[in-house]
Amino acid sequence: MSISANDPNRKTWLEIPENSDFPIQNIPFGVFLTRDDVITIGTRIGDYAIDLGALHQLGYFDGIPLTDDIFLQDTLNDFISDGKKTWRLVRNRIAKIFDENNTALKENDDHRTRVLFTLDEIEMQMPVQVGDYTDFYSSKEHATNVGSMFRDPDNALLPNWLHIPVGYHGRSSSIIPSGIPVHRPQGQTMPPEADTPVFGPSKRVDFELEMAFITTDANHIGEPIPVDEAEDYIFGMVIFNDWSARDIQKWEYVPLGPFLAKNFASSISPWIVTMDALEPFRTESPKPEKELLPYLKYTGKKSFDINLEVSLEPEGGSEETITRSNFKYLYWNMSQQLAHHTVNGCPVNSGDMMASGTISGSTEDSFGSMLELTWSGSKPLKLKDGSERKFIEDNDTVIMRGHCQNGQYRIGFGEVRSKLLPVYQPKKK
Amino acid sequence: MSISANDPNRKTWLEIPENSDFPIQNIPFGVFLTRDDVITIGTRIGDYAIDLGALHQLGYFDGIPLTDDIFLQDTLNDFISDGKKTWRLVRNRIAKIFDENNTALKENDDHRTRVLFTLDEIEMQMPVQVGDYTDFYSSKEHATNVGSMFRDPDNALLPNWLHIPVGYHGRSSSIIPSGIPVHRPQGQTMPPEADTPVFGPSKRVDFELEMAFITTDANHIGEPIPVDEAEDYIFGMVIFNDWSARDIQKWEYVPLGPFLAKNFASSISPWIVTMDALEPFRTESPKPEKELLPYLKYTGKKSFDINLEVSLEPEGGSEETITRSNFKYLYWNMSQQLAHHTVNGCPVNSGDMMASGTISGSTEDSFGSMLELTWSGSKPLKLKDGSERKFIEDNDTVIMRGHCQNGQYRIGFGEVRSKLLPVYQPKKK
Repeated sequence: MSISANDPNRKTWLEIPENSDFPIQNIPFGVFLTRDDVITIGTRIGDYAIDLGALHQLGYFDGIPLTDDIFLQDTLNDFISDGKKTWRLVRNRIAKIFDENNTALKENDDHRTRVLFTLDEIEMQMPVQVGDYTDFYSSKEHATNVGSMFRDPDNALLPNWLHIPVGYHGRSSSIIPSGIPVHRPQGQTMPPEADTPVFGPSKRVDFELEMAFITTDANHIGEPIPVDEAEDYIFGMVIFNDWSARDIQKWEYVPLGPFLAKNFASSISPWIVTMDALEPFRTESPKPEKELLPYLKYTGKKSFDINLEVSLEPEGGSEETITRSNFKYLYWNMSQQLAHHTVNGCPVNSGDMMASGTISGSTEDSFGSMLELTWSGSKPLKLKDGSERKFIEDNDTVIMRGHCQNGQYRIGFGEVRSKLLPVYQPKKK
Repeated sequence: MSISANDPNRKTWLEIPENSDFPIQNIPFGVFLTRDDVITIGTRIGDYAIDLGALHQLGYFDGIPLTDDIFLQDTLNDFISDGKKTWRLVRNRIAKIFDENNTALKENDDHRTRVLFTLDEIEMQMPVQVGDYTDFYSSKEHATNVGSMFRDPDNALLPNWLHIPVGYHGRSSSIIPSGIPVHRPQGQTMPPEADTPVFGPSKRVDFELEMAFITTDANHIGEPIPVDEAEDYIFGMVIFNDWSARDIQKWEYVPLGPFLAKNFASSISPWIVTMDALEPFRTESPKPEKELLPYLKYTGKKSFDINLEVSLEPEGGSEETITRSNFKYLYWNMSQQLAHHTVNGCPVNSGDMMASGTISGSTEDSFGSMLELTWSGSKPLKLKDGSERKFIEDNDTVIMRGHCQNGQYRIGFGEVRSKLLPVYQPKKK
């Protein structure tokens, strides 16, 4: 079945701002609250949010096998369960509805009013109920940097790293959409030179620039997914800020891995960009440096050329870009991650989220965390307002953005923007 | 509000087998499929499963604020969200309905037929949809044993262990109820003396004897739960077999913790025994060996005296007990675990599950895993049929049981029973 929604020549009757992340070729999926306080599933074209629930009720999806209420839900999980063929039919149909040569909706004032919202009329929600969330560790540069600082510069990369797309389980309940502020976490840390831990606000709150993919129901318990089938089960991707508290992490993470250093919050961009929309931006992964076991060997191009950047905006100041990276730097790709995750029979469901791990490049201006950018605080970043940053300070806003660009068009993710608030103060009862 | 359901003098008009785990003082909650292929929420008294959906429709819960469909669901999550006061009202009412002096249901043949099932007429399901699952590591004996074998006998307990109830995130999607068999997982391992990993069936499949508690909606993101309020958010407990593949674990777990070694399956006993039912069995935890940070200091008795045992049943053979332990051996209690888990603001929801970690005692016959019982395979267990076990073999069945006993009555958990099947063979297409 062709991905006609990707036709580079298609124009839409909606007005699209120049350099928009959301041309008619994108058509991401998300969940939003409307001006009437209704939650619906929608898409975005330019600066319009489009109510797919309303479109469906008005008959615009006739002929596609969908239940009546598939878009009248507060998560995409059921739609994602419908599978790749249905996602593609719906996305292709949306492209057609908004094609400049199609007048059906364009010239129906009543329908248009019910379907189209401006961005200030809506509030983005979590797009899925995340069943399980896994965080990988797939950037060789990041793993090497962290290994150098937390352990041993001479043996920074652990022996398993080049053989296994290393990953660990994270917390689903604290994944929140762009716009929701995050409180500085408190916790136990072991101060340098001390012999007993202390309790208090983390002094090393950090972001991690990651991307995450969202799966459909992929397998039954016991059943592995072959690496070259893995993409059939990936719905799309978001940008993922894996908030981290480095001092808490350092004290707690041996031997069972990071826990409270990570699970206070992870922030995502709210529009899921489909793998179909990313299809024109396929690219090679770095060459494996060790012979891979057969279940991790794949054919074709399985990475994607996605430009990423992080900006920091101090309270009352203006934002400035502090790092630029690219998804294609990752050593392990999503197909390998999903094949590895299920090779023991672990079941993967609709709405599960798997993040890449911090995406660092090889140069100092492409590192994906403050830990790396300031080399554990030893080389503070100088901001334009004259202030310095070792880690994230209270009331700083962190903004991550990503987009693909070829000679024909741009496909973007919008942004994930979150402000770090001071430590939570209990309300008086 | 009193826990009248715990009245030790109450008798029921139902016949209860001697030494039943489920006297009228227990009243656990679970979910089952009935003979009519309907899923309902129920309780168990003796060897009867009781359909709470039917009881509610027949008016037996009148006066308790419950939605009409609260028991007509395929998970307990919504009922658990109703909170402790409601759980107690319902449990007290069930005790009254089945009290030997209450003839309303006893003498109504039609109602009795609709409400009561024998165990062979039902099939137990997962009692909750697990949102997030956390596994703690709270037995000092287990942590010491594992540290000795995996790392260094002289520094077996890591420096953070006596300060932090160490825990990590696990996989929700592979938690399954008693009775569902488990396939031997495949994965990467690094053979001793080798310099490159191999792929194949795990040769060291193990059980871990644990218990888990199930929470209600406890906090909003950002908001810690004080240690002495933690019990308000705990609905009840189950026995938890945290299946493990030791060879996979050893190769993958540094630095981010166990992943595929654990997430192929965890098996639970299907009836959730409420904290109210366990109230008479409170006991002290071991004394802290280090001064605790204030957020981990609690008042009163916060552990429970629960006898635990594991049996092994070889294919075609008879079962024999291979270890006996007790929940009270755990160094860290559930209140400390929940206070720690949320001290950074991590949100906890209804249906979340938190397991204890392997519960080992101090003697060799009270260790909670084959890894410890056979000391990493160096001292195989001799079974009555003459065979030996270093780890679990294909077609072995592992059975875990637990119960409390005082001078007045016994409260038990039933069992979690699961058979280890050989490696999964893909169905031919």
